[in-house]
Amino acid sequence: MGCPAGIGGELTLRAWLARHRSGSAFVALDDPDRLTALAQRLNLDVPVRAVETPAQAVAAFASALPVLSIPLAEPPIPGQPSKANAPAVVRSIEQATTLALQGQVSAVVTNPINKAALYDAGFAYPGHTEFLAHLTGAIGRQIMMLASPTLRVVPVTVHASLRDSIAMLTTGMIVAAARTTAEALRRDFGLPHPRLAIAGLNPHAGEQGALGTEETTIIEPALATLRQDGLDVSGPWPPDTMFTAKARGRYDAAICMYHDQALIPLKTLDMDHGVNVTLGLPIVRTSPDHGTAYDIAGKGIAEATSLIAALDLAAQLGSARSH
Amino acid sequence: MGCPAGIGGELTLRAWLARHRSGSAFVALDDPDRLTALAQRLNLDVPVRAVETPAQAVAAFASALPVLSIPLAEPPIPGQPSKANAPAVVRSIEQATTLALQGQVSAVVTNPINKAALYDAGFAYPGHTEFLAHLTGAIGRQIMMLASPTLRVVPVTVHASLRDSIAMLTTGMIVAAARTTAEALRRDFGLPHPRLAIAGLNPHAGEQGALGTEETTIIEPALATLRQDGLDVSGPWPPDTMFTAKARGRYDAAICMYHDQALIPLKTLDMDHGVNVTLGLPIVRTSPDHGTAYDIAGKGIAEATSLIAALDLAAQLGSARSH
Repeated sequence: MGCPAGIGGELTLRAWLARHRSGSAFVALDDPDRLTALAQRLNLDVPVRAVETPAQAVAAFASALPVLSIPLAEPPIPGQPSKANAPAVVRSIEQATTLALQGQVSAVVTNPINKAALYDAGFAYPGHTEFLAHLTGAIGRQIMMLASPTLRVVPVTVHASLRDSIAMLTTGMIVAAARTTAEALRRDFGLPHPRLAIAGLNPHAGEQGALGTEETTIIEPALATLRQDGLDVSGPWPPDTMFTAKARGRYDAAICMYHDQALIPLKTLDMDHGVNVTLGLPIVRTSPDHGTAYDIAGKGIAEATSLIAALDLAAQLGSARSH
Repeated sequence: MGCPAGIGGELTLRAWLARHRSGSAFVALDDPDRLTALAQRLNLDVPVRAVETPAQAVAAFASALPVLSIPLAEPPIPGQPSKANAPAVVRSIEQATTLALQGQVSAVVTNPINKAALYDAGFAYPGHTEFLAHLTGAIGRQIMMLASPTLRVVPVTVHASLRDSIAMLTTGMIVAAARTTAEALRRDFGLPHPRLAIAGLNPHAGEQGALGTEETTIIEPALATLRQDGLDVSGPWPPDTMFTAKARGRYDAAICMYHDQALIPLKTLDMDHGVNVTLGLPIVRTSPDHGTAYDIAGKGIAEATSLIAALDLAAQLGSARSH
C-alpha cells in the first residue's frame, strides 16, 4: 500500500494498466474502495476486484486489479498523511511479509511510506527496510542495493552525514555488504560467478596515501578477506572513473563507501528506472526509488516507471529464488 | 608539451590530424625533432614545421604542425620520465604563459605532466595549475572547472582526502568558487546570466539536519551572500538527484563540495570529452582530463578526444575573451 496519502495508489493503478496484459501478476494489499474511488477521480480505466487469496489474484489479474483488502479507517486526503490510517499501512507490510514467508507470493514490493506518520502510530523502525528485517528475523543483515538496467550499486554506509559515514566505515561492514551482495547475485540474479568492484573512499582512491589512508587501513583488508572467500573482487577503484560505460562492463555490482558515491552515478545514468532491492532478507523485496511525493499526490501526474521496474525485478528475482 | 615520456606528443600529432583542415590553429611548444621521430614511429602522416612566431604558426597550420622549438636534453623514452628533460617541460609552460599574457596567443592548452619528475628538477608547485597561477600572478584565485558537452562542474575542495575536504570546507571557499565561476561563464562562455546550482554536502542535502549540518552552517550562508551579489544561485541540492538530465537543464554550472561529487557525474556521463578549465587566471587555460598514461605511451593507441575537446574549448573561450 505505502502511505495512502502519497502517490502509491496511483502508481499501483498505473502499474496494473501497464502490466496486466503481459506482466506477471501482482496483488495489491490495499483498500479496494479507495482504489476504486481513486481510479474514478483520476479517470483511469482500472477495474478493482477484492480477492481472498493470491491464487484468486493470479486468476483475476488479466481482467482486474486484484486487491487483498486492508480497510482504511478514513478516506485518505492526498498530501496529508493521517494517523488514523497508519495502522492499515503497517498491517499491509506485515501481511505481505507473512505471505512471502509462507511462499504464497514470490516477492514483496513496497510503495513509499512516510516514517513520521507511522512513528505517531507506534511504528518504531528507522524505515521500511528495518521493519521488514525485523518481521523476517534478519535484523542487521539487510543491505540496500539500487539496481537499474545499466548499474547495480550497494552503499556500505547509507543514512548518515558524510562525516559520520566516513567515521563509521569498517572493514567488517564492507566484507558483510560484499558477501551479502555476492550471495544475492548468485541466488537471485542468475550470476553464478559475480564480479564485485569495491570503490575507494577518497579522490583517486587515496593516491598511495597522499589523498587519504582509508583505502590502505580499511578497504584493502576487506578485499583480502573477500579474496580468501574465493570471491571475484577488485579495487579499491578511483570513484570518479569506476562508473563509466567501459568500467561498468567489468563488474556486476559496485560496493560503494557512502550514499552519494552509489546514488549519484545510478541516478545520473537512469533516474527513472532505479529500483531499491533489499538484500540479506529471507524474502525478495523491492521498492521504487522515490518517496511519497505528497506534492503531486492525487493530481494524476505521477509516473509509475520505477514501481513498474520494481515489479518486474521482483518477479525476476522471485522466480529465480523459487527454482 | 607536457611530459615527453607520456602520451602528450602522440595526442598533439593526432589533434593536428583531426583539426588542421577545419579547426582553429594551435602551435606546439615542443621539440620538433622528437615530434618528427614520434610521427614516423607511430606511422602518423604529420609534417612537423619549426616556426618562430605564433603568426607563422597560423600560416603553416593547414599544411604542417607548427612548433615553437623547445629542445629536449635527450630523446624521451616512453613511460620513463627523465630528470634531464624536466627543465624543457617547465620552460614550455612558462613560454606558453608568456605568449598568452602578451596576447600573442588567445589560450594555453597543457598536456599532462608528471609532478614527481618535475619536483626532481626543482619544480616547487603541487601541479600545473598552481604553477600557472604563480606565473600569472593569480595564486589563490585559481578554480578548477571540468566541462563536458552535457555538464560543467566546479569542485570547491579538490585534492585532499574526503575527510579533510569536509574539514576544510568554508562558506568563503564556496562564495569564492561561485563568484569566479559566474564571472567566467559571463566573460568566456557567453552566458550573460549564469545559473549556478550549489550542491549539498550530505545525503539528501542533510534532510533538515538529520543527516548532517553543513548545509545549514556552511552552505546556506554562502547562498545568502551570493544572492546579495545578485547571482542566480539555487541549492543546497541533494547531490544524488542534481545531475539527472532534467536537473541539469536548470543550471549552467554545478558548484560541488568535493572532488568526486563533481567528477563522478561528469565522467560517468561523458568520460572522453571532459575538459579541465582553470578559472580565475588572467589567461584562458584548458587541459585534457587525464594523466600522462605512461602505460600506453609510445604504443600508438592513445586517444586524443579529450585534448581535441580541450583545444576546441580553448579556441571558443579565447575568442570570447578577445572580443
